[in-house]
Formats: sequence, C-alpha cells, structure tokens
Amino acid sequence: MELQLPRGMRDFPPEEKILRDRVITLLKETFERYGFSPLETPVVERWEVLASKYAGGDEILKESFKLKDQGDRDLGLRYDLTTPLARFIGMNPMIKRPFKRYHIGTVYRDGPIKQGRYREFYQCDVDTVGVHSALSDAEFILISLDVFEKLGFKIEVRVNNRVLLRELAEAAQVPSELINSGILSIDKLEKIGAKGVREEMLAKGLSPQAADLWLSYLDVSGSNSEVLQAVQKIVPQSVGAKEMAALLNLLSNTESVRFAPSLARGLGYYTGTIFEVFSLDPPFGSAVAGGGRYDNLIADFIGSKDPFPAIGISFGLEPILELLKEREGFKKKTVAQVYVIPIGVTKEGLLIAQELRRAGIKVDLDLAGKGMRANFEYANAYEIPYVVIIGKKELEQGKVTLRDMKTGEEQQLKLGEVIEKFI
Amino acid sequence: MELQLPRGMRDFPPEEKILRDRVITLLKETFERYGFSPLETPVVERWEVLASKYAGGDEILKESFKLKDQGDRDLGLRYDLTTPLARFIGMNPMIKRPFKRYHIGTVYRDGPIKQGRYREFYQCDVDTVGVHSALSDAEFILISLDVFEKLGFKIEVRVNNRVLLRELAEAAQVPSELINSGILSIDKLEKIGAKGVREEMLAKGLSPQAADLWLSYLDVSGSNSEVLQAVQKIVPQSVGAKEMAALLNLLSNTESVRFAPSLARGLGYYTGTIFEVFSLDPPFGSAVAGGGRYDNLIADFIGSKDPFPAIGISFGLEPILELLKEREGFKKKTVAQVYVIPIGVTKEGLLIAQELRRAGIKVDLDLAGKGMRANFEYANAYEIPYVVIIGKKELEQGKVTLRDMKTGEEQQLKLGEVIEKFI
Repeated sequence: MELQLPRGMRDFPPEEKILRDRVITLLKETFERYGFSPLETPVVERWEVLASKYAGGDEILKESFKLKDQGDRDLGLRYDLTTPLARFIGMNPMIKRPFKRYHIGTVYRDGPIKQGRYREFYQCDVDTVGVHSALSDAEFILISLDVFEKLGFKIEVRVNNRVLLRELAEAAQVPSELINSGILSIDKLEKIGAKGVREEMLAKGLSPQAADLWLSYLDVSGSNSEVLQAVQKIVPQSVGAKEMAALLNLLSNTESVRFAPSLARGLGYYTGTIFEVFSLDPPFGSAVAGGGRYDNLIADFIGSKDPFPAIGISFGLEPILELLKEREGFKKKTVAQVYVIPIGVTKEGLLIAQELRRAGIKVDLDLAGKGMRANFEYANAYEIPYVVIIGKKELEQGKVTLRDMKTGEEQQLKLGEVIEKFI
Repeated sequence: MELQLPRGMRDFPPEEKILRDRVITLLKETFERYGFSPLETPVVERWEVLASKYAGGDEILKESFKLKDQGDRDLGLRYDLTTPLARFIGMNPMIKRPFKRYHIGTVYRDGPIKQGRYREFYQCDVDTVGVHSALSDAEFILISLDVFEKLGFKIEVRVNNRVLLRELAEAAQVPSELINSGILSIDKLEKIGAKGVREEMLAKGLSPQAADLWLSYLDVSGSNSEVLQAVQKIVPQSVGAKEMAALLNLLSNTESVRFAPSLARGLGYYTGTIFEVFSLDPPFGSAVAGGGRYDNLIADFIGSKDPFPAIGISFGLEPILELLKEREGFKKKTVAQVYVIPIGVTKEGLLIAQELRRAGIKVDLDLAGKGMRANFEYANAYEIPYVVIIGKKELEQGKVTLRDMKTGEEQQLKLGEVIEKFI
C-alpha cells in the first residue's frame, strides 16, 4: 500500500494546526462578542439540497463530491456553508429572527488543483438572517475591522451596494437584461483593467456608449462623502446611495472603510450592501474576507413567501494564514512550554509535572527515561523553550533546575518560583 | 425539494453547539496541559488507506462511505482517527518521537441507526507514539481523571493489561488459538453475565474446565494491591502483572482507579495496558472514555521493521454530552450576555454596543429598530439575561438602563458600571 493523501487534501501537523487554531479562536471570540452563536451542520448533505438552483448553481455542482448511503440515497459533501444555513432555516422556520450564527468548518470542491486551491478547506462564515437595516450591515464591517486589528493586519474595507450598481447601469442606458452579466465583467476590473472589462461588455452585446458611460460612473474617487455626492448627482433618487449614506454614517468614526462604486463581487445572489476586505500588507491586494446582503436567496431556496433578508461575511482562513506565516516567519512545533526530565526519580517527576499542569502550564515529560543528551535533543527538536530537571539532589533541596534552552542558563528554583515564571 | 438531513446526521443549533464547544474546549485545554499538540487530517482518505487490514478491519469497512474524485480515484470518509494517525506517521517517519498528538474531529459510519448511534459523530483522541513505559500509560489515566474532575463527573477508571489477560488464559490451559476470541467474549461480561460468556466460550470450542478456570481467575475483588497479589499468585512471573504494578505505583496517590482483571476492550489491536472510564452518575455505568496500548498497529500498518509502540485514549463526546444535559437540565440558547436596545438613537446605541464588546462582553443589539415589547420578546426567546436600554434621556444623563430580564429590575448605571458587572 502506498501511503498518500487524497489529491488536493492536506494534513495539518502541529506546527500548522497550532497557528490555525489561534486564528480560529480569535475569529470565534470576535464573532461571539457581536452576539453571533455557533451553528454546526453535517459535512454530508442530501444531493437534492446541494443541487438547488438557488444555491451555488451548476458550476459549483460540477465540482462537488457525490456519494451514496446504504439506502442508495444520493448525498454530497457540502461545497459551502450558506446552502446548509438556508436548509437549516427552512427546517426551523419558527426560529426567532434575527437569527445570528457563525459557522467555521470544512467544505469540499473536487476542482482543478492550483496554487492555494484545495479540495478540502475551511470557510469561516458569519450571517444574520431576518433583518434588512444599515445597522445590521454595519456590524459586519465592524467585525472585520476588529478581526484584522487583532491580527495586526493593515487592511482596507471596500464597500458598495448592488442596487446602486444597477441604478448606475440604468442611468447609463444599459439594457436591463445585460446588467447582471455586466456586473460579472466589472468584478474583473482589478484583474483585466477597464479596457478588458469594456471589451467583455461589448462582446456581451453592450453598446460602446453605454459601456463607456457605465464605466465612467464607476470611476469616481475622493473621500466617501465626495463619492456619495458624485453618485447621487448621477442618480438623484438613488435607493442604493441612500442605503450607502446610512451605512457610512454609522461607520463615520472608523478608518479603513472606503466606498468603492466599482466593487461588484461575483456571486449572483447579492441584493444590497457588498464588501470586500483587502490586505494592504505585502503581498499587496489579497482579499482576506468578503460578503454582502442576499435578501432573496433563503426565501427562494426554501420556497417561502415570507421574506428572509440576510447578510453575511466569509473570512478567508487560507489567505489569512499565508499572510501570518509570511509575517511571523516561524511556527510553534508544540504547545508544550516546559519539558520535565526526571533523573532516576520517575514518580516524583510525574508529581512535579502534575503540579505544573494544575497551575495551567503546558507540560511535556520524559516518558522513556532517556539520557540528558537525548532529552535536550528532543526539547530542541520541538523547540520547547524551558526544561525542568529533577534529580535526587534537587529533591533533597526542595528545588528543581530550570534551564532556558535558548541561552543554556540554569537556575535552581522552588517549584512555586517556576510556576510564577509562566503565569 | 424536501428539506431534509441525510439519515443519521444532525444539525447542532446554538443551544447544542454552545455546550459541545464548552466540552471540546475543556478537552483541548486538558490535552495541551499534558503536552499534546493538535494534529488535523482530512475527513476524506484514500480508500486503500482505510481498507488496510491493520486498521479497522472488514466490519468497519462495510460501514464506510465510499466516493470517487474526478480522477476516478477511490476515496472514503474516515471511520476513525487512529488510521489517519498511522498514515500520518508513515508519511512522516522522521518526526521526533515520542510524538504526542490529539485530534478532535468528525468520523463517519454508514451503519444501522440506533439510539445514540449516528452516521457522523465526533471522536476526541489523544495518542503518544514512540514509547512503551508505565509513565506514558499513567498520563492517559491522569488525563481522564482531570477531564472528568473538571466536568464534575463521578467516575471510575478500570485498568487492565492485555498481556496479563493472555497469561491468565494460558494458566487456565486455554488453547492459544482460542485466546483472542475468548477475550471478545469476556468483553461482554457486563452485558451478558458470566454465564453468557461461558456459553459463548464453549460454543467457540473451549473446554468447560478451561472456561471455568479462566473466568474464575478474572473474578478477583479487593483493593488494587490485593488483586495484584492474587493474579501474581496465579502467574508468578507475569509480565502483565509487573506492568500493572508499575502503573499502579505511579497512580498510587489517585482515587477512582480500579484494577479490573476482567476488563477486555473489544478491539483486537491492543497489546498492553487497557482502560475504560465509567460514569458513576445516573444513568449508571455508561462508558465515557477508553483506550489502551497498541504497540504493533502502526509498524504493521506502515510496513516498518522499526517498532512504533503507541497508546491512546478516546473520549466519548456523545455520552459526555448526554450526561451533562441530564445534569444541567438546560441549554444556553445564545452566547449573548447583553442585548442593547437603542430607542431612536441608533448610532449611539451602536457605539455603546461597541464599547461593551471591546470590554470583552458578548453583546447582541436590536438591528431592526423594533418596539420595546418585540425587543423583550426577542431577549426572552434567546434567554439573554440582561438588556441595556438607551434613549435620549439616558444619553443626556450619561447613563444607560440595565434591566435584569429574570427579575424585571431596572437600574440607571454609567457604562463603566455595567461593564464591571460582567467582568
């Protein structure tokens, strides 16, 4: 048998997983401070649910893993966390709204493997279901500001509104049946430039006049209020601009939020506020989070006449981790803070390790009765910063030897003194 | 489309997931204090790896979900976390040993659905690879004592040794080819009683004399040292009893550990110390954790001539949660500690919510500008214990109204005073 991983899937050894867990804990804590509660749904869903036309669409379905259970039922591995949320809401229609949940879990895509794309990866989603308001929208921008401040990332949050994007298109005389595909082209602005977008639009059947006008409307710069004034001049009664104004007012005492009329976001289901968080740390310009309002998806999905307005943000765990690794340059190889080496006093060593553990310190222990050299080798291999050595002499004196593995410095200390060093 | 979950799979709404997360965090923290680091492997493994005869065996394979990727490769959903660990060790043979890892993750079994059996469920595994010693064995007993003390469970840890079990069988003249299947019968002692076990043994071809003798050897009671003396009398040079003696010596200052010569543990791959943790809280006798030493599995699995002695424990998240729910009788419906209601002062309400959040408090906020009655209904539906009300009057006075939702008592407080109540 050849020992291999499935293609596109990864192990996370401790040196990776410790860092991942640190970020996940930070996300969890931030989400909870905003009153979002955890929801967990199974990795496996019924195929029928995944295949709903209101969810990911055909493209995503082609990349989905399919399987069957013993009863020959068609199942699949979830490709995102939004479809399971919609299914959950549909199965629990009486749940008190607004329903605010977060979900951090793995999703699966059986697609081509490229740099940074995997067949199993995490999504970290936060969503509010049941309310359409500027206040609800503002929470998501604030969460992302909080998360990246805690991570120490320099970021910019670009905000726009899908209604406004449509209104500007209408003002530019874009035929309504071409607006959606035009938005998909605008989404590529950063990638292929205005000229590229214009070419795409023309190929899709848009007139040069309309394309140029629409693009010129999106090409506004200045402060957020200047941009707001500019678009309000183009569409005086703009509903989208009014929503943007309310949102920007709530966010007026924050930095790093920029009204970007050309921000499009690819997904078809967005209906209002949209946003994307860009890292300003090198390598520049990677998106680390994004989301938006999708007021129709859930009602369409569950076939409800009741409205289920909703908005969500998804944090990109993989790009966040790439940036963190870039910056920190090192990874912890173990959680252990101290390595205890008993020399000929096994049981006393265990009791001392237990006392340190009870004090909340993460303690590894020589389990094999190795020699000192092999023990130092072990502590160094795992980069455990401190070693506690206990021999007969130390026991007689009621002390232990604490060795700093970086400097090699050794001190004879009482156990209480060792504990104080760590807490 | 019918909105349904796959058969045997579950959603965990906040009221379930908050409790699950609490237990998982407690496990994680305890494991790390013993110097175990997290390892994560994918949910999907190559079928070939899952099908290794050294892993779960044919029975478990029949209950495994199978799938294929685009490249027509045979894959499956993991049925446990031990096989992925063995695969990981095989792919990383140079990793410094002892390698101490924990893994908390979902596994999948496409088996019949009974009470308390699911097709997706959590395993919480801790393992040490690369050392055979009483000290290593002792750590696992101590971890389980720690976990259940923190959970407030009354438990008993039953400990035995597979070598001793075989030695006693040999002393009873059980033919060596019948020992393993005899151990499987002994595993049912609690379920079917000594008479039932005896019948099974006879049906398997064991002589009545050998069966009776073996069972009588296992039927020892008394203190741990009395039991030790009894088995040492039967097998004077017993290797298993010697290991038990060393282990019990290391654990001599603990309570709740009982040497149980009849403890068998079903799995075929155990080679030394075995243990099972039983809850003594009602409903009595449910196993909440178990494990043992498996010194040959990894080397056999990866085809190594080098030995890979190993030992592990698995905590049963599902029975632990059942017992917790039984005891606590209630579940938290949200993480939110406070619900902020701004009356006509939306932006100020948001700023106050933000200040509470910065202080580490978990805050939900009226996002929809609802009336007071609807807001109280919401807070009650989610059982949020406190509500903060902010109107123009409160703002003028530099105070907020804090309402205890249980008693209905209201106080006018400065924000700093509110924060102090929560931290």
